[in-house]
Amino acid sequence: MTKEELFTQIKKKQSYLCVGLDTDIQKIPAHLRNTEDPVFEFNRRIIDATADLCVAYKPNIAFYEALGPKGWVSLEKTLNYIPEDIFTIADAKRGDIGNTSELYARAFFENLNFDSITVAPYMGEDSVKPFLLKTGKWVILLALTSNPGSADFQLLQTDDGTADYSRCLFENVLATSKAWASDEQLMYVVGATRPDFIQRVREIVPDHFLLVPGVGAQGGSLAEISRLGMNQHCGLLVNSSRNIIYAASGPDFAEQARSAALLVQQEMADYLNQYLG
Amino acid sequence: MTKEELFTQIKKKQSYLCVGLDTDIQKIPAHLRNTEDPVFEFNRRIIDATADLCVAYKPNIAFYEALGPKGWVSLEKTLNYIPEDIFTIADAKRGDIGNTSELYARAFFENLNFDSITVAPYMGEDSVKPFLLKTGKWVILLALTSNPGSADFQLLQTDDGTADYSRCLFENVLATSKAWASDEQLMYVVGATRPDFIQRVREIVPDHFLLVPGVGAQGGSLAEISRLGMNQHCGLLVNSSRNIIYAASGPDFAEQARSAALLVQQEMADYLNQYLG
Repeated sequence: MTKEELFTQIKKKQSYLCVGLDTDIQKIPAHLRNTEDPVFEFNRRIIDATADLCVAYKPNIAFYEALGPKGWVSLEKTLNYIPEDIFTIADAKRGDIGNTSELYARAFFENLNFDSITVAPYMGEDSVKPFLLKTGKWVILLALTSNPGSADFQLLQTDDGTADYSRCLFENVLATSKAWASDEQLMYVVGATRPDFIQRVREIVPDHFLLVPGVGAQGGSLAEISRLGMNQHCGLLVNSSRNIIYAASGPDFAEQARSAALLVQQEMADYLNQYLG
Repeated sequence: MTKEELFTQIKKKQSYLCVGLDTDIQKIPAHLRNTEDPVFEFNRRIIDATADLCVAYKPNIAFYEALGPKGWVSLEKTLNYIPEDIFTIADAKRGDIGNTSELYARAFFENLNFDSITVAPYMGEDSVKPFLLKTGKWVILLALTSNPGSADFQLLQTDDGTADYSRCLFENVLATSKAWASDEQLMYVVGATRPDFIQRVREIVPDHFLLVPGVGAQGGSLAEISRLGMNQHCGLLVNSSRNIIYAASGPDFAEQARSAALLVQQEMADYLNQYLG
């Protein structure tokens, strides 16, 4: 999917919501647990209930990997079920030396046909480049994550060539990596829990899309991230996982998920109207 | 496996060799390709041929993940086949927010019963801690990797609280993370391609084991890393993948792998004799 196609979907649906398919086998409603593939059955119902309200789905791969080989089958069925016009994100946070990253790219872009994958930057350019070789596929590089541990290294002051070392590591990651690919292939993870840094992110990467976790359960504000982070192509994919997919645990879980997604979508429509005009 | 048990194996086998099971389906000898599970059959023969010469096996997970669900079956069979007294490393380079890292820990420590997993440090403490909750299991944190891209961020000058910012990011990662667990649960990845930094590593973590990739195909020197990196418990696991498992591609590939491993082991015996006395 191209950047322009993604923006078209955002305008059409009046939404920049990404639904996180972090499907925990232990949280699946009881009435689905006896089906042949409870994880896929849960995802299918969530997708049916939310597909017109969101522009992206993001399965976190850990939830599937924890289930062994059958988790990969559930993941593959889920990917095949997601409508073509919805952007798909493998939240995998992979990254390895070049010849190995190529294999991860094959796993997520060829075998599973994801549109994008999240990648960790620590190992540098040759660990990221293999994911950029396929036209139409995206890398979403971790920059400033939403968890408390993001302060440990991402906020370290680093040498930016000036005398005052005012640039944090995540800013160096943005500034260095944006030379590796255009904003047609590269996005960044920037957590909603750090609104104080969004402007600094936008100074370095004004045109890139940002994948924003941390709204909802982790405490980030949709209003704030939208006000500070939106650009002329929206430039935001705001993720919500638990607040939507576990909105309820009874037989009506999918309807409740839809209601939760609708609330977010309506708020997003307001911000699109307000900031994009 | 405890640190003491690992050291016992090193002394017994006169080896600190880790064999990387980076089993590429396209490089498996022709005569194995028609077996039911060529990846496992290849691994089984490599293990039979090298188990008395090495103290660790390290499958890089990308090679298995690229094969879809059946890759995970091959990986599980391989893990079950590795003798109990050999340390096992899931080279996965995972790391995510806390509740998600817990799931990766379950995948590799419970489902697959690995002794250890490689973890990327970028997301900080709460992304690493879930891997440290199980007694007898190890985290091997990326510090200074062997690939060219390691220079992009790992060697950035960072604020170390002094006026001259003389500490690189990888040194900050070592200094910060060593408080998260003892050297009975935590090792570090330090590439053999950077011998100039080994002494700086040892100044910060004198007692930890280091997992050392980059000898052989990537150009690192076993002699140099052994001289500079060995401590009183050896403290090194030196990995070799391609040079051993693809020593030959014909019917005698396992014998040739053994010969290649034997050469490395004999060199290691010399260094153990020389530096441990």
